[in-house]
Parts: sequence; structure tokens; C-alpha cells
Amino acid sequence: MTRPVITLTTDFGSSSPYVAAMKGVILSINPDAAIVDITHSVPPQDIRAGAIALAETTPRFPAQSIHLAVVDPGVGTDREIVYAEFDGRRYVAPDNGLFTGLARLGAPDRIIAITNREFWLPEVSHTFHGRDIMAPVVAHLSRGVAPDDLGSPRETLQHIDWPEVRIVPGKIEGTITSIDSFGNLITNITGEMLSDAPKDERVEIRCDEHETRGIFETYGDQPEMTLLALVGSSGKLELAIVGDSAKIMLGVDVGTPVEIKW
Amino acid sequence: MTRPVITLTTDFGSSSPYVAAMKGVILSINPDAAIVDITHSVPPQDIRAGAIALAETTPRFPAQSIHLAVVDPGVGTDREIVYAEFDGRRYVAPDNGLFTGLARLGAPDRIIAITNREFWLPEVSHTFHGRDIMAPVVAHLSRGVAPDDLGSPRETLQHIDWPEVRIVPGKIEGTITSIDSFGNLITNITGEMLSDAPKDERVEIRCDEHETRGIFETYGDQPEMTLLALVGSSGKLELAIVGDSAKIMLGVDVGTPVEIKW
Amino acid sequence: MTRPVITLTTDFGSSSPYVAAMKGVILSINPDAAIVDITHSVPPQDIRAGAIALAETTPRFPAQSIHLAVVDPGVGTDREIVYAEFDGRRYVAPDNGLFTGLARLGAPDRIIAITNREFWLPEVSHTFHGRDIMAPVVAHLSRGVAPDDLGSPRETLQHIDWPEVRIVPGKIEGTITSIDSFGNLITNITGEMLSDAPKDERVEIRCDEHETRGIFETYGDQPEMTLLALVGSSGKLELAIVGDSAKIMLGVDVGTPVEIKW
Repeated sequence: MTRPVITLTTDFGSSSPYVAAMKGVILSINPDAAIVDITHSVPPQDIRAGAIALAETTPRFPAQSIHLAVVDPGVGTDREIVYAEFDGRRYVAPDNGLFTGLARLGAPDRIIAITNREFWLPEVSHTFHGRDIMAPVVAHLSRGVAPDDLGSPRETLQHIDWPEVRIVPGKIEGTITSIDSFGNLITNITGEMLSDAPKDERVEIRCDEHETRGIFETYGDQPEMTLLALVGSSGKLELAIVGDSAKIMLGVDVGTPVEIKW
Repeated sequence: MTRPVITLTTDFGSSSPYVAAMKGVILSINPDAAIVDITHSVPPQDIRAGAIALAETTPRFPAQSIHLAVVDPGVGTDREIVYAEFDGRRYVAPDNGLFTGLARLGAPDRIIAITNREFWLPEVSHTFHGRDIMAPVVAHLSRGVAPDDLGSPRETLQHIDWPEVRIVPGKIEGTITSIDSFGNLITNITGEMLSDAPKDERVEIRCDEHETRGIFETYGDQPEMTLLALVGSSGKLELAIVGDSAKIMLGVDVGTPVEIKW
Repeated sequence: MTRPVITLTTDFGSSSPYVAAMKGVILSINPDAAIVDITHSVPPQDIRAGAIALAETTPRFPAQSIHLAVVDPGVGTDREIVYAEFDGRRYVAPDNGLFTGLARLGAPDRIIAITNREFWLPEVSHTFHGRDIMAPVVAHLSRGVAPDDLGSPRETLQHIDWPEVRIVPGKIEGTITSIDSFGNLITNITGEMLSDAPKDERVEIRCDEHETRGIFETYGDQPEMTLLALVGSSGKLELAIVGDSAKIMLGVDVGTPVEIKW
């Protein structure tokens, strides 16, 4: 039988002992779990960045994987912890907006408020529910515990503001929503939204005071140090400096508007 | 049969090829080992920080796990490498004080000086015993080699200075002993030591020139940017700035004294 | 049956969601793969650093392991992706020089240009062949797909410039080729090349304007803060500052020449 996959997405920092504590709890309950790190470099308490990481990456995993996400500034307050299913994939996270990105791809199939202490650690701290509630819950799920046994069904999830794209004839307005480790600026404008736009020099892309023309296919299409726009590996429009970091060279950050005109 | 868990704690830096070399050696001897990183971000050659990570995190792992720790400024000198058991858990590390935190939780059940070259790599470098001695030893242990076959019994372990807590009526004096990735300042003062202290505004907590009153339950109990004290997820008193980094905002570091008065 | 080991070496940054996406693709095809990170901290687009990491670390892994490397500034251009075997070990990477370090240890036993789309993801982006081509290919290899089914045999691999060592009687000239997480400066001068050199104070090692005498066995052979030369754990001459970072203290970087005279 195949080992169940459990993924972890947190803002604990890579190589954090808090991550290791969660892995210890999971393996103590299910030693056969295959634990995979999605990322632990979500900026501290940045729920939107966590929501983006979940929505971009978890659909790549096997259908029966269980995804645990902990970006939890409200730990110990009355925010709930929930189990949710999206397109057959299973998630456990605080209900603070972390599901917003996933919910924009499709409505959840099922939501359960996690209230049954039977599947938690015996002692629950006020400040680390990732270790004391969520880790044991995903471990029990991976051993076959039914989601219905975790608590009671719920109808809705919390949502956070999400940067919208405005499309009018000849113009698209979006936002830089993430920056990858190469410094490429990734927007919320999808390749499909660009289907009406020309790809050649008639199209103009502006970000802050910077400007480029044309939508290319890959980084190697232009010489080194050129600012270039392309539809990247996540299907979104990116701005890149060939062979360097656009984030550093342009000095722009997440939240900066991007305008496409033709 | 369940895969044996081997954990790694080092000061090699996260994503270091030295860590990968140890994993390669372990998997070459036992391909079924489930290797888990505790942390590789122990500050270089900081034995006390390594000792704290071991004591805080490894008890969360399954009882039969094997824990390998390499913070080894004396590699290649006459410091010994030892196998030690604490409360049924198994450890391999240089005997340079790395066990100090564990030993304060309870005396070791068994200590073996690792001298039998049969379970080492054939060629042993002078500068990387983590790869050449400790990795193959834990891999052989995970395949069932008996600890007694590794070398000869020993009676004692090396200890390093450990910051003590001073408790007098109406006052507790401790120290910041670690800082987590959120910048929360974690002390060596446990929740139990605080059982006589009031939790309301009658109790005063001082750290450097900073001061706060009351011991809270969770970060959300106070408004953003408030300095707050609470007993955190490791059972120790922490100082936190709600929604920000106390380390950066207060400018204090590991070793700073903390005083509690009521 | 033992789980197949797949290692990953990239320049994506540690804890990158791009790494997680590759792991998701691999586990979707072969849930039993044991995925191990070599490093994701290769400096962005630094093919030589990636080639060094592969050559230094992958030989430590079990013989049947499959090694995937993605440092791919030319992604989406006409550079090829290849399968190559070295000494029984199996590799998949862009053919841009990443194999140079391995090829210097011994000629490849087999090279296949990866062209058969049957083992790729159905949709291939222009900018992330690590996820869309290489990850599914290594996953299929780990399930027993024959390398010959991936594409057509090739005779040669691309090579990049490689810093050479110049040896004359009484003098060896080499280069700092990497720096580890402790700040130790690692050269391309092997212990064997030094077999004619004395190890005592008659030998002089110069790097930039810095100078030391003698070749030692381990860091503990000299007092703290001493500049010292030794043959390190990878069999290469290293320059280290005892108890500190030589990189920071000496202010030298990869590429700096090193001269040994006696």
C-alpha cells in the first residue's frame, strides 16, 4: 500500500524547530506518512501569501494528499480550525482566509469545523495549534479517520480581500501578487485574460515607472538585463529581468499595480 | 514493518550539501530510513543552541527514533563521539555538551563511547565526522545493530554552562535562551515556576529597559504592537510584540536577563 | 522492495514552492519515491556551482538513485534536456554544462537526449521544464521506464570552463571554487596534488594578500581566529579561520586564486 502524503505550508521559517515538532507529532501517530514541505517561508502572518502558495502548489500533489497550512496570527482566539475539501483534495487550516485562493478556483465540496478533541494532543497550548491540534488531526486522517468524526459540518469559509483584475477593451489592470526566488514579479493576470491582447510590440506593459513592450515566451528570448514580460510557469503574467532580479533592479514589491495596454 | 525515523540537527545551514552527504551515506546503508530534519540553522558552533533544539524538539518524535546531532567545533581533536539513551530515545552526537539540555530533563539510561570502526565509513576524514562516523552509525543502528556493539560503556557526559533561574519570594530571575523565527523572545522560566505569581497587572516583567505587566494566554489577547508576556508553546515564558518581531523592536538578544516581580 | 531515491539540486532557493511543485509531480507518478534535497541554494543561474554540488555530493548516494538537477537559465530555448549515466548513477538535467564536474571524474557511460513527450506532463510551459519535463521523467525512471525509451542516444555533453590547477616543481596554483556555510574557502587543489609538498612550516599558502604556513589536519589544530590551511572533508585544500568565517574575515570570494609554494 502506498504511503499517505501530508504536505506542510507555514510561516515558521525554513529549518524551524516548530516545523520539526509538527513532523514529530505526525510521525508519532502515523510513522508511514510521507511528509513533504510546500514552503515554510510564507512571510510571518501573511495570510494572503499563504493562500497563494496553497492554491498554486497543492493541486500538483496526488489526489489523496492531505495539506496542512499554518499561518495563524489569531491562534488561541476564537477563530476556528477547519477541514475542507476542494476537488477531492483535503486541507486542514485555521479558518482565517487561508482558503481564499483555493475557493476562487472552485467551491469547497465539504467543510467541517474541527472540534472533536479525541484527535488532538492531550494537552493543547494556547499558542501552537499547528502542533497540538492540526498535526495530530492530519495524522489521524492519513490513517483513515473519517472527516465527519472531526466535528460538525459548516457551510462557509472566511475570505480575505483578494486583488482583482480589471479588464476593459484594450486595457487590463492587475497587481504583483508574489515574487519568486529569482526576483521575477508574478501578477494575478492569467494567460487566458491576455487572449485578446497582441503579443508583439503593439502591447505595452507598465509597472510603477517601468515599461516594456511585447509578451514573450521565455527568458532566453531577450538579451541579458532586458526587462521582459511573459506568461510564466503558473500561467500568470510575469515581469522579469533576463539574468537578474527584477525585484531588486526595479525596486518594486508585492502590491504594485501592473497595467497592460494595446 | 514501519520505517525507522532518523532525525538530523546540525549547524550546517539549511540546504547545505553537507547535510545531503550525510543523507546519502544513511540511505546507502539503510534505504528504508525516514530522515527528518530537526533544524540545520543552529548558529555555527553554538553548542548551547544545539542542546536546546535537541531538548525541545526530539521528545515529540516516536519513541524508537534515532537522533543525530552535529555541532562539532572540536571535530578531529580528542573529543569523543557517543551514543546515549534518554527516556528510551536514542542519540548519537559529539560529547561536547550537546546533551546538556536533555540531561537536565532526566539522567541518561545508557552511554556508549563510539569506538568500533566496523560501523564507520572505510575512510574517515579529519573534518567531517558527521558524514564519516555518525551518519553510518545511526544507519546501522536503524537496521538493528545493538548499541553495545558500537564501543564501550561510559558513565558520564560532558556538560556546558547552562543559564540558571533564580527564584525568591516575589521575584524570579531568568534569561532569554532562544528566539524563534517570529522574533519572540523565549526564556528559561517555565510555567510551573510561575505558579505562585499572579497573572494580572500585579506582576511586572522586565527585560533590558523594557517592561510589561500581566501574563497572558495568547498573542491575540492584546492589540497589535503591544509588548506582552505569555507562557508559550514550549511551556516557557515568552516576550512577544503582537504582530511584529520583539527581537527587532526591542533590540535584545539571547543571553539578556529577564526579571519577574510581584 | 526498497523505495527508489530521487535527489533534487536546484537554484530555486530553499523552501521554494517551485521545489514543492516538482515533488508533487513526482509523487503523483510514483508515490513511493523517497525524495531527498541535495541543495536548492545554488546561486541563481550559476551552472558551475550546480555542477560542483552534483559532483561532490551525489556519489554519496545509493547506486540506483536518480539525480535531478535544475539550474536552467536557457529554459525554453533550444538547449536540450538529457539523461546521463556516470559510474552507474543516473542523472537528468539540462545539457548546459551541469555535467562538467561529473565528467571530470570519469566519462559518461550513456547519454540520451530526452525527446519522447510520452513521459512529460501533458502541458509543458516555456519557463519551468523542471516541473513539466524533468520531474515526470525521473518519476517514470524510478518506476522502471528504460532510459532508451526517453529519446535517442547522444555522444557528447556540453561543458563549461572549469578552473584548472597548475602544478610546477615547488608551486601549485589553484582557485577558490566554493565556500561552505561556515565560511570555509574550498579550493580545487586536491590532497593528492599536495603529495609532494611538505606539511610543516616550509609550505606557504597565499590567497589574495593573506598568507599562512603549514597544512594541518583539523580546525582544532590551531588557536581561535588563526588562518589555517587543511585538506577538508571533500579531499580539497581549504582555508579556514578557526572558530569564524574566513569568507567574511578575509573578504575573499569564489574565483580568488590560491598559490602554494615550498
